[in-house]
Amino acid sequence: MLEELREKVLDANIELVRQGLVIYTWGNVSGIDREKGLVVIKPSGVEYDGMKASDMVVLDLDGNIVEGHYRPSSDTPTHLVLYKRFHEMGGIVHTHSRWAVTFAQAGMDIPAFGTTHADYFYKDIPCTRALTREEVEKEYEKSTGDVIAETLEKEDAMATPGILVRNHGPFAWGKDPANAVYNATVLEHVANMAYNTMMLNPQTPRVPQYLLDKHYNRKHGKDAYYGQGN
Amino acid sequence: MLEELREKVLDANIELVRQGLVIYTWGNVSGIDREKGLVVIKPSGVEYDGMKASDMVVLDLDGNIVEGHYRPSSDTPTHLVLYKRFHEMGGIVHTHSRWAVTFAQAGMDIPAFGTTHADYFYKDIPCTRALTREEVEKEYEKSTGDVIAETLEKEDAMATPGILVRNHGPFAWGKDPANAVYNATVLEHVANMAYNTMMLNPQTPRVPQYLLDKHYNRKHGKDAYYGQGN
Amino acid sequence: MLEELREKVLDANIELVRQGLVIYTWGNVSGIDREKGLVVIKPSGVEYDGMKASDMVVLDLDGNIVEGHYRPSSDTPTHLVLYKRFHEMGGIVHTHSRWAVTFAQAGMDIPAFGTTHADYFYKDIPCTRALTREEVEKEYEKSTGDVIAETLEKEDAMATPGILVRNHGPFAWGKDPANAVYNATVLEHVANMAYNTMMLNPQTPRVPQYLLDKHYNRKHGKDAYYGQGN
Amino acid sequence: MLEELREKVLDANIELVRQGLVIYTWGNVSGIDREKGLVVIKPSGVEYDGMKASDMVVLDLDGNIVEGHYRPSSDTPTHLVLYKRFHEMGGIVHTHSRWAVTFAQAGMDIPAFGTTHADYFYKDIPCTRALTREEVEKEYEKSTGDVIAETLEKEDAMATPGILVRNHGPFAWGKDPANAVYNATVLEHVANMAYNTMMLNPQTPRVPQYLLDKHYNRKHGKDAYYGQGN
Repeated sequence: MLEELREKVLDANIELVRQGLVIYTWGNVSGIDREKGLVVIKPSGVEYDGMKASDMVVLDLDGNIVEGHYRPSSDTPTHLVLYKRFHEMGGIVHTHSRWAVTFAQAGMDIPAFGTTHADYFYKDIPCTRALTREEVEKEYEKSTGDVIAETLEKEDAMATPGILVRNHGPFAWGKDPANAVYNATVLEHVANMAYNTMMLNPQTPRVPQYLLDKHYNRKHGKDAYYGQGN
Repeated sequence: MLEELREKVLDANIELVRQGLVIYTWGNVSGIDREKGLVVIKPSGVEYDGMKASDMVVLDLDGNIVEGHYRPSSDTPTHLVLYKRFHEMGGIVHTHSRWAVTFAQAGMDIPAFGTTHADYFYKDIPCTRALTREEVEKEYEKSTGDVIAETLEKEDAMATPGILVRNHGPFAWGKDPANAVYNATVLEHVANMAYNTMMLNPQTPRVPQYLLDKHYNRKHGKDAYYGQGN
Repeated sequence: MLEELREKVLDANIELVRQGLVIYTWGNVSGIDREKGLVVIKPSGVEYDGMKASDMVVLDLDGNIVEGHYRPSSDTPTHLVLYKRFHEMGGIVHTHSRWAVTFAQAGMDIPAFGTTHADYFYKDIPCTRALTREEVEKEYEKSTGDVIAETLEKEDAMATPGILVRNHGPFAWGKDPANAVYNATVLEHVANMAYNTMMLNPQTPRVPQYLLDKHYNRKHGKDAYYGQGN
Repeated sequence: MLEELREKVLDANIELVRQGLVIYTWGNVSGIDREKGLVVIKPSGVEYDGMKASDMVVLDLDGNIVEGHYRPSSDTPTHLVLYKRFHEMGGIVHTHSRWAVTFAQAGMDIPAFGTTHADYFYKDIPCTRALTREEVEKEYEKSTGDVIAETLEKEDAMATPGILVRNHGPFAWGKDPANAVYNATVLEHVANMAYNTMMLNPQTPRVPQYLLDKHYNRKHGKDAYYGQGN
């Protein structure tokens, strides 16, 4: 069942390792079949090495396991909240990649300083508020999804396809699992370069809005001319 | 004798190299057979490349060599002090990994800033006081064990499975040699991200206690729900 | 057509990945056949993995496609401006390498602090002014070439074979595509070490002019004695 | 002639690449046969990839080429000054490794902050004064050797087997070419950790002298007990 999506979710999880975004079991990717309303996600606490497509867990949007011999990622409720609120999301990823975590721990947005950022993220990459004690103590992982949604509501979720959860780390998404991982990789590089920029010149202004518009739109606007037009 | 433990200690030593925690001979791992009261440890100053299980040295808890054709690691007395004082320790590792050494040289604890830390370490990772001249000049390596024990005494050693020895570097431990190396790797990543966080925002507060409790307990508490429940 | 130059441009693009200067499609290299007045450049938004010499696009200096089944890099107009203004350039490269981008985002020149810099760049590596709204909104990529040319005019372009475009990233060049990539790699290393130097000692003075002269000239002057004299 | 030493010098040059201390041709290693009074050194500006033992150049201590089809490294006069002044040196290496260059550019000694430093270097790793215009303009490479010798004269050269040449980069040495490269690698790691330490805590005091003595002597003193006693 959902063999193709399982393969895509597996590949995207492996790609996390290849891109240096995770060690051990520190990340998870999921994908959704919007027609069937089913989500495929990495099992919890299983090493990437030797993982198979058949190890992926299939759930419905209420979190009921439909197929799979493992428990799903403990972050599954976060993924489900996001799939239910943002219908354009086709894949979601969570990591503890070091530069994104740095900003999440410092409680700071990643400022849009240049065209590398603007090529993929239309605004600063936001950091959520801290969760309250109540939110953490009951339904922690669902609350994580809720605080992401609360922060994204003011935004166009697909135009800033990543976020930092305060004290925790990044979530990113895309049209499918591979695209979610791509965006998580970009987020990590952009975070690294933003950090360096702030250390080198703490007064660095943001990239001018007209340059941000230009770069974002030449890749993602309706008259996009970057790439081969597929 | 102790063939299985030798293999585990060898593998854990090799894993140090794979995780980028050591170069040359800058680290050592040991493991203990609690029933027999025997410790297996890496030989001193021998390169990791080409090392064999039969090169590992077997000692009793008083440091008498029971088997082995090499001298044991010069840090052996430190390991023995820890095995004698903390009965839950099944493996111990020492490295000169760069971010942990950075904090050890600066004489600072690694603050608990986020969930990556909280997933494995329940408190700040402490840095010991400096050893006195007397402690260094006689029985230096034993004194190193004693100062670690002195610092840990106020703590639950297995809940903060790593420490920094002032001006020197990290020691970490776990239920077995592989788990000790795992914790040393986490300690290094956490140190790196804590450093970045402090550079980016020197006023960064620690992670709220309720979030630290949540993350630590969902992996290690009695109602843990992370992983596959093995 | 231009088979040899296509191979060189392909190799130089692949070398970008090997040197860690680009991920995904974040860079492009071109080369020129001065006799024929034709430029060969990487196609836009195509992954490096699996790219072939026949995928390269051939254009004339007015940007008309002479051969190729892909769209050329979206940065092609920048390359063309430079080839038209600076006749010694035989290859040009653009990347988003992290240390060069750091300086470009911070809007700072890379100061000449040492002999590594002086071995390849005779002066500080300049950062252009920001483009105006008008320049960005019409003919953005051509304007990027114009602002590079404007900054270079005061310099000997081949003696400082690289530049930072404000808020964007580095361009570098050389006598052929491989030499352009070589210079982009040097620029990245030099940027990294300049950053570290400025963090360690914000008051660091520039390298004395007589030492800069010595190093630059022993490699590039008419009495050069570095290398094998080929 | 000197086949064995040629092989050792070649291996040591290749090891520079493996340890990440050089890219392209940015480094050179030499070795000396004290009995014959002959030095073997890497050729100038030749890539490491594909280099053969027969490409190494053999010179006498006055710099006359005795054997070899290439020009020797342009830094040869520096090596020769050192071999003539310090008779314990059996191998010498020069690189542009990034952390050592950082301190050389900033014009700062590398402070002895911890045991990693003390295991190999008995004091701060010194940075030379800047060369004068006169020294640079005539016999630059010999002057580089002279300024190293001038700085080392107050020291025990073999107890601090490395130095930083102001605005330039590190030189290191050892009992043979492999040992020189080993010390250059240690110097780079120690520089990196010293930088981090100074950024984290600018007030960090040096390691206490009694701890430095202990570590240095347990490896290098007459009662050394680290390693296997070979």
